[in-house]
Amino acid sequence: MNRLMLATAALAGFMTALPAAAQFAKPEDAIKYRKGAFTVMAAHFGRVAAMANGKIPFDAKAAADNAEIATMMSKLPYTAFTEGTDKGETRAKPEIWAENDKFKAAASKMQDEMAKLNAAAKTGDMGTIKAAVGAVGQSCKACHDNYRKD
Amino acid sequence: MNRLMLATAALAGFMTALPAAAQFAKPEDAIKYRKGAFTVMAAHFGRVAAMANGKIPFDAKAAADNAEIATMMSKLPYTAFTEGTDKGETRAKPEIWAENDKFKAAASKMQDEMAKLNAAAKTGDMGTIKAAVGAVGQSCKACHDNYRKD
Repeated sequence: MNRLMLATAALAGFMTALPAAAQFAKPEDAIKYRKGAFTVMAAHFGRVAAMANGKIPFDAKAAADNAEIATMMSKLPYTAFTEGTDKGETRAKPEIWAENDKFKAAASKMQDEMAKLNAAAKTGDMGTIKAAVGAVGQSCKACHDNYRKD
Repeated sequence: MNRLMLATAALAGFMTALPAAAQFAKPEDAIKYRKGAFTVMAAHFGRVAAMANGKIPFDAKAAADNAEIATMMSKLPYTAFTEGTDKGETRAKPEIWAENDKFKAAASKMQDEMAKLNAAAKTGDMGTIKAAVGAVGQSCKACHDNYRKD
């Protein structure tokens, strides 16, 4: 394992151990936090996707590094979908709380696909990376379709 | 070293190797990214600070874990202060680009103090943590005073 793989392994273990409750003083703090975490994740995932789609030149190290950060970031936002954070500056749909098990499963699906992309990026094989980018993209879209307002 | 220490060591090496240029398609993307990274960093630092200030009960493991995430996040935002990102939805002052060496030094100071807090948090000693939280807070404030509009 290289250093970044260790980083992700460490974070994966860490974030699942974090208690979800009582981490944000105000609902708007939780909303701002999860938006920020998604934004940072999307930026790093987006760089790998841009390479996979031929929009920027493929750089194996950059792809691997960005996939690593995206994977770490994927662990963060879901602690912030706490009760009372369905109002305000958010596009979160009430279904997140009404069918929370399904929402959590969709979140886990994205995290799993991102972890697979992370592994794929380390192979340096563009075909493998492309397929994994597509699967991540589908998991993003599925969650947005069901749980994010237009 | 535990797993989270490895994570930070890995990220520290990684982020300094990231090229700063050409990572954002539009200036507003860079602005949104750095705001998001600061927000996530502040949330995790804030939990350690709240323990140091007696606002929430001290939990040694939570303090160490949150300091670790804050340290990792501290590496992210500065790639996004690219040319042309002084306008728009930002409170960044023009001095960031006019005296960029000083700004970078102030950023490094914060990163260094956060890394010290991370080490302090692992000792579990409240006096050490308190002092380190204070130093991080001063480094945040120094940068905000000089480089962020009110």
